[in-house]
Amino acid sequence: ISSTNKSFGNRGMSLEQDLNETNIYYQSTGQCVIHKKPTPVQIVNVDYPKRSAAKITEAYFKQPSTTDYNGIYRGKYIDFEAKETRNKTSFPFNNIHVHQAEHMKAVMKHEGIAFLIIRFSKHNQTYLYDASHFSWWYFEQSDRKSIPKDDIERDGHLIPEGYAPRLDYLSTIDKIYF
Amino acid sequence: ISSTNKSFGNRGMSLEQDLNETNIYYQSTGQCVIHKKPTPVQIVNVDYPKRSAAKITEAYFKQPSTTDYNGIYRGKYIDFEAKETRNKTSFPFNNIHVHQAEHMKAVMKHEGIAFLIIRFSKHNQTYLYDASHFSWWYFEQSDRKSIPKDDIERDGHLIPEGYAPRLDYLSTIDKIYF
Ligand SMILES: [Mg+2]
Ligand SMILES: [Mg+2]
Repeated sequence: ISSTNKSFGNRGMSLEQDLNETNIYYQSTGQCVIHKKPTPVQIVNVDYPKRSAAKITEAYFKQPSTTDYNGIYRGKYIDFEAKETRNKTSFPFNNIHVHQAEHMKAVMKHEGIAFLIIRFSKHNQTYLYDASHFSWWYFEQSDRKSIPKDDIERDGHLIPEGYAPRLDYLSTIDKIYF
Repeated sequence: ISSTNKSFGNRGMSLEQDLNETNIYYQSTGQCVIHKKPTPVQIVNVDYPKRSAAKITEAYFKQPSTTDYNGIYRGKYIDFEAKETRNKTSFPFNNIHVHQAEHMKAVMKHEGIAFLIIRFSKHNQTYLYDASHFSWWYFEQSDRKSIPKDDIERDGHLIPEGYAPRLDYLSTIDKIYF
């Protein structure tokens, strides 16, 4: 199976880099206000050297309790988690923590727009996959710990790639949610 | 002038602690999904010791480009910055960076609800102050670098304090924005 989604900006770029460049582009055009949240870090020790910046000398990565990205678009709250997989036939969701899955459920309950952006890096395809579908796999069945790619193709939406924006996920949001 | 807002939970608690406890309470009752964003940190060096957690050994605090808190309430995007001052007669805004002020303006433009939560710690009063008023002081005048407390009392709204939630800012949002 060859990629159906010719990549321009994606030569070796990670999904996160693509999304960050996309969000900078969107911000510059004033289309939305969506940012990646900082990586949660537990700070244990900080040095305050004279005449220079405070230096964190001991800290640890913390489990994120929410998703990677959130913000506002067309008056609606937007919230998503971005994940890439090198798996060719399914998306394993064992590295999505229960707090993150519950967070997406809560966002839907409050009438926000919640989804995953899933990249199959071997196929060079990136899908927007609504959190309602994901919630079913995560919470409603216990047979598998991964979502078949076929299901993501059927229920998800391929995000168009280009130069600027690299990953035009707002056009996909327009199509699905408005 | 004595405090008009008898404090229960606020014996030595910082505004951030009060807000975090408030948000945990709100989450437990399912009223909203609002979280503090992690502190932005530039990670320079990480050690990966055998059989124990990755340890960040060199990192620096980064300037935040957005506000402290965001999320969703009653279908609306909520975004705010929280600040305390020990100043008795005005709120100095020199420690709010231009990116943060611009971020709040952009949120308003996209029809989100943006405000500051300002605590006058000497008075033990905490106000919700809409970003439109703040923007005027920040961008439209250049005479002062602080907002007189009188103006915040007039244009802002005193947030009720209690045991749970400590700072019932959703009741204030209900009153102003819905
Ligand atoms: Mg991610
Ligand atoms: Mg703050």
